[in-house]
Amino acid sequence: MAFLLLPRRLACRSWHNHLLVSGSRYISQAAAKVDVEFDYDGPLMKTEVPGPRSQELMKQLNMIQNAEAVHFFCNYEESRGNYLVDVDGNRMLDLYSQISSVPIGYSHPALAKLIQQPQNVSTFINRPALGILPPENFVDKLRESLLSVAPKGMSQLVTMACGSCSNENAFKTIFMWYRSKERGQRGFSKEELETCMINQAPGCPDYSILSFMGAFHGRTMGCLAATHSKAIHKIDIPSFDWPIAPFPRLKYPLEEFEKDNQQEEARCLEEVEDLIVKYRKKKKTVAGIIVEPIQSEGGDNHASDDFFRKLRDIARKPYRIFNTWLGDPSKNLLLAEVINIIKREDLLNNAVHAGKVLLTGLLDLQARYPQFISRVRGRGTFCSFDTPDDSVRNKLILIARNKGVVLGGCGDKSIRFRPTLVFRDHHAHLFLNIFSDILADFK
Amino acid sequence: MAFLLLPRRLACRSWHNHLLVSGSRYISQAAAKVDVEFDYDGPLMKTEVPGPRSQELMKQLNMIQNAEAVHFFCNYEESRGNYLVDVDGNRMLDLYSQISSVPIGYSHPALAKLIQQPQNVSTFINRPALGILPPENFVDKLRESLLSVAPKGMSQLVTMACGSCSNENAFKTIFMWYRSKERGQRGFSKEELETCMINQAPGCPDYSILSFMGAFHGRTMGCLAATHSKAIHKIDIPSFDWPIAPFPRLKYPLEEFEKDNQQEEARCLEEVEDLIVKYRKKKKTVAGIIVEPIQSEGGDNHASDDFFRKLRDIARKPYRIFNTWLGDPSKNLLLAEVINIIKREDLLNNAVHAGKVLLTGLLDLQARYPQFISRVRGRGTFCSFDTPDDSVRNKLILIARNKGVVLGGCGDKSIRFRPTLVFRDHHAHLFLNIFSDILADFK
Repeated sequence: MAFLLLPRRLACRSWHNHLLVSGSRYISQAAAKVDVEFDYDGPLMKTEVPGPRSQELMKQLNMIQNAEAVHFFCNYEESRGNYLVDVDGNRMLDLYSQISSVPIGYSHPALAKLIQQPQNVSTFINRPALGILPPENFVDKLRESLLSVAPKGMSQLVTMACGSCSNENAFKTIFMWYRSKERGQRGFSKEELETCMINQAPGCPDYSILSFMGAFHGRTMGCLAATHSKAIHKIDIPSFDWPIAPFPRLKYPLEEFEKDNQQEEARCLEEVEDLIVKYRKKKKTVAGIIVEPIQSEGGDNHASDDFFRKLRDIARKPYRIFNTWLGDPSKNLLLAEVINIIKREDLLNNAVHAGKVLLTGLLDLQARYPQFISRVRGRGTFCSFDTPDDSVRNKLILIARNKGVVLGGCGDKSIRFRPTLVFRDHHAHLFLNIFSDILADFK
Repeated sequence: MAFLLLPRRLACRSWHNHLLVSGSRYISQAAAKVDVEFDYDGPLMKTEVPGPRSQELMKQLNMIQNAEAVHFFCNYEESRGNYLVDVDGNRMLDLYSQISSVPIGYSHPALAKLIQQPQNVSTFINRPALGILPPENFVDKLRESLLSVAPKGMSQLVTMACGSCSNENAFKTIFMWYRSKERGQRGFSKEELETCMINQAPGCPDYSILSFMGAFHGRTMGCLAATHSKAIHKIDIPSFDWPIAPFPRLKYPLEEFEKDNQQEEARCLEEVEDLIVKYRKKKKTVAGIIVEPIQSEGGDNHASDDFFRKLRDIARKPYRIFNTWLGDPSKNLLLAEVINIIKREDLLNNAVHAGKVLLTGLLDLQARYPQFISRVRGRGTFCSFDTPDDSVRNKLILIARNKGVVLGGCGDKSIRFRPTLVFRDHHAHLFLNIFSDILADFK
């Protein structure tokens, strides 16, 4: 177990200076050095989780809404870097990062500084209707943030407030684009203008979006029609008759099952082509295809680069977007700084490296505990493995939490890793040590 | 014209202290008094709008996205109270408030102070997945903000990030509630669990939501199926076959057309009942009804309190909700302070009073310029009137803008007022003076 024997090296990078928020404390890992680490040095558990204070707050929240999904209540002021602190003072290494949404760790000093700069206050208190009255720095901030990391050739964008809204509007854009291709040079017909007002064709054409079984694309009604990960998301909600293709179910290790996996991907692609033909005949023409690079909520299911390229080839054989907010410039301000930090600190390469340490360690645990761990897989730090069933999976998550490690489940029986981009090799080793002990004692 | 002869009285209320944001300036209307007014004393125009700087920025934005909807670019740092300042230094009295979304005016000092308080920084930089890991003050802040102004008897709530998301989830809640009534004591059937995953009944039942012609409830696919204000919102987008009832078209002045209006409302209610029967027969049972208190986007169409009560009676003859964000606690922090200020400063009564001044003035203008203004109507400051056609309407809005007044259109030919809650009598007089001059010169 190389990883277990490795000394825990504390990375003391030079990516931040002293914190500017009064009232917060940061533990310095290198008092003799110039820079201050904004991370803690390990988990510290004081109570079972949820502890008494969390339980009290859950009771209060339950009077206002169904609080069953709440894990515990958090002290975000004290949370920093890779460590989430709860209201009972428990400090946990967080490998799930708010369902994968804390890119550069908790309480990053650069973001605290950004908020407190006088010139940024207006952006947080004067939210504009972006589509009609944008702020002066709107174009600059778009260039500095999203456009600076856009895939090659993608030079245009419209901002939205959340993932569901982005997907809803992507669907609408595809429908508009497809219809305008069909319509050709002519403008909207009188019949189209009239029938659309009463939700009827031809104004509202009966187009469809092809999605994959196991996919998760959001929970608004358009997105939900393309989501097929858990019944509880969908049951009782009216939907659209849209085509659903199987997503490849790869066998691991990949190098051992190369031929099987190729056949599996070919089968899924064939099904995509068949569904496109079938839905055209049903007069529910497929206007677009939506697919996740990694099916996450559905169980961290991967496919090969070749599968995605062939899917794009299929899509090629076949975008008036507006709302009041069109996103939120205060989030864009934060995003621009997040991207600056990711670039300045080379955090993507960091994640690739820490991800390799994590994956290697998981493969080792799989070799030692094949009765609990199978199908270890991952790209970067987006690693995951299967457990025998959801009961074992859920037990492992709870035990880990009480040992100071926050993990997340996905699919029927998978555990997925979604750490921050400031997750470093030593955090991976720390986790692997703790999890190895858990598995050794697990019955 | 009483309102034109009234002296412009500057309200110097004691609702804020000195501004804490360095780099910003506030004009004091009462230098000798204790308090600082955070409003300007009137419009100040330097160029046509959009001015040269706005036009340059529009050109830049057009390279990234379709910027046709942009009116002009704003300098939010310099905007305050009821005055919106653009990037060319033009200062305009804003009666439209970012499509009705600036409750207590631009750059309110209390909000600037809130942002800069060290204990609040964490809320802005550590956004939680609220449904699983809420912050310690979550319940308290809900009580202090939304619950403190909830209608009597409404003691539960789930937060969402925007209006469309709220409506999508309201629809889902209604569908779940209706289906659970139908299902009775039994749990989900195997068939329901299986069919919902492929978007089919009985798992995805063919329920509907009844909405009104002229309604606007958002632009995501569920909301859009209940939206019927403008064809451009809907054309080319697939939709649901849901029932659409006529919304009363009242005649003004109300006291003159009492009988006609009663008959009109009765006709619409009868149509609602007929549609419910018709859609039950079509096996697209109406699970819920959605209606705006004032149909805004559709033309500021009002109905009587009696109409809404009878609609509720009809509805009585006939809620699993989750997403990653479930709103944003930083917005709730701002909202709590906004509500505090509204209460402390009695801004609702202020709006009622200023709204009366505005409505009285509009009625006077209608009497003097019946060729341009008709159907003056309003509740509080939510006033509106009709113009002869969209060309006159759009011309009036552009002329007013160049005279330093921002107005908003709605429906085919209406102008609607959506000022802030710090809109006071003198702002109404100021607008009425300017608009009276515009109408006197209008051809």
